[in-house]
Amino acid sequence: MKEPLILIVNDDGISAPGIRKLIKIMNDFGKVVVVAPDGPQSGMGHAITIEATIRCDKVIIDKRSQIEYSCSGTPVDCVKLAVNQLLDRKPDLCVSGINHGSNSSINVIYSGTMSAAVEGALESIPSVGFSLLDYAHNADFSESEKYIRQITKKVLENGLDSGVCLNVNIPKSKEGEELKGLKVCRQANANWEEEFEERIDPKGRTYYWLTGQFVNYDKETDTDEWALANHYVSVVPVQFDVTAHSSLSSVNKLLIDE
Amino acid sequence: MKEPLILIVNDDGISAPGIRKLIKIMNDFGKVVVVAPDGPQSGMGHAITIEATIRCDKVIIDKRSQIEYSCSGTPVDCVKLAVNQLLDRKPDLCVSGINHGSNSSINVIYSGTMSAAVEGALESIPSVGFSLLDYAHNADFSESEKYIRQITKKVLENGLDSGVCLNVNIPKSKEGEELKGLKVCRQANANWEEEFEERIDPKGRTYYWLTGQFVNYDKETDTDEWALANHYVSVVPVQFDVTAHSSLSSVNKLLIDE
Repeated sequence: MKEPLILIVNDDGISAPGIRKLIKIMNDFGKVVVVAPDGPQSGMGHAITIEATIRCDKVIIDKRSQIEYSCSGTPVDCVKLAVNQLLDRKPDLCVSGINHGSNSSINVIYSGTMSAAVEGALESIPSVGFSLLDYAHNADFSESEKYIRQITKKVLENGLDSGVCLNVNIPKSKEGEELKGLKVCRQANANWEEEFEERIDPKGRTYYWLTGQFVNYDKETDTDEWALANHYVSVVPVQFDVTAHSSLSSVNKLLIDE
Repeated sequence: MKEPLILIVNDDGISAPGIRKLIKIMNDFGKVVVVAPDGPQSGMGHAITIEATIRCDKVIIDKRSQIEYSCSGTPVDCVKLAVNQLLDRKPDLCVSGINHGSNSSINVIYSGTMSAAVEGALESIPSVGFSLLDYAHNADFSESEKYIRQITKKVLENGLDSGVCLNVNIPKSKEGEELKGLKVCRQANANWEEEFEERIDPKGRTYYWLTGQFVNYDKETDTDEWALANHYVSVVPVQFDVTAHSSLSSVNKLLIDE
């Protein structure tokens, strides 16, 4: 087998410790090209830049063997630029992360990290998003490494179903407690109960900050939230077909058959 | 039944003709509150503003009865602000659009219009995104009106399945050809074959514009692309559970059972 070509993306920006760790790991698996945002792009979802120009410049950040590009666009822009402009062949793997913070359950649709992986799947590239449940800049990624290597090896060898990528979330390990392994699960039915903090600026005008509490309404044991709460690494297969197939007949009944 | 409370959002901005038309129609159905971006937010997907402040100010744009807020955030921010800050009760309906341009098939995941409707569904509000297949600023929304009224009436009366919103796309009508009616369908398997146009700025630095061709790989007749090409208004039920349920066992086999 020829050396795999691995594309690395993230949403915390090219200098975030999470992506630097992922680059270090991926250099052991193949030829690595990084195309990542030049600054934080958290919460960008599947946003793309269509009304503005995009900058994308080659950069050297450390002495490892990867090639790196710093991009002014969103995480999804980074994948599109890599595939359509920067790389001379389709990557064998697209990995996104390691995100600083959870992308479990409903967070998947807000996440730039996961949207980049979904975009990889759209381009028929086996794609995986990795997230650690620790928002700290100096998060400890050491226990994540074993699972990232395990999943990367399997996906490089076997690929993934067409139209599907993986959403991998890794619990923050506590002292003296080892993670229990991987658990394949579905997205929990959870959501944010949000509040806006209203403030007044120095000129007397109102502005808002988004704040909120994450609430899990789903107590089943086949969900990512259950897995994470029970010290498993959660793996959710994610698809870009958002059709609610099970509602086709009820909507048909509502609008057509009367 | 007390007067319905209707929230209107879009991604083309509060002054776009599409939303002005939708406001005019919705005023016949209930009490209307508009919370829409202060400028174009196309392609913003499910992006939210978490690292910056949000402005949201009451504005008066015309003499109709709606209340309107112009918001510096994304379409999804608009829904969150409306529900959690501006409205004193949960709306009975959330409508988004009328978008200038198609949100059929894969466009649903890039679309700010549809992400606002998905956010409405997340908040347990019956939600519908409307799009007209005409990017022109002066697009003719007259034939859309009949279908928007028909769908609005049904959804206000009966609601929608929990966790599901509707993605309604309306073909551009050609002279002498009437639309054939509504068709409930699934998201076609289609994608953009993209290219970046590389340019050099006046200072000699490279920048890029995203361009591309939409390609439909899916020739089945149960898709939104088929419906639109055959002069039907397409209605796709859309869900926010992006778990690839049909891949749970294959991913389990790949990663766990060896």
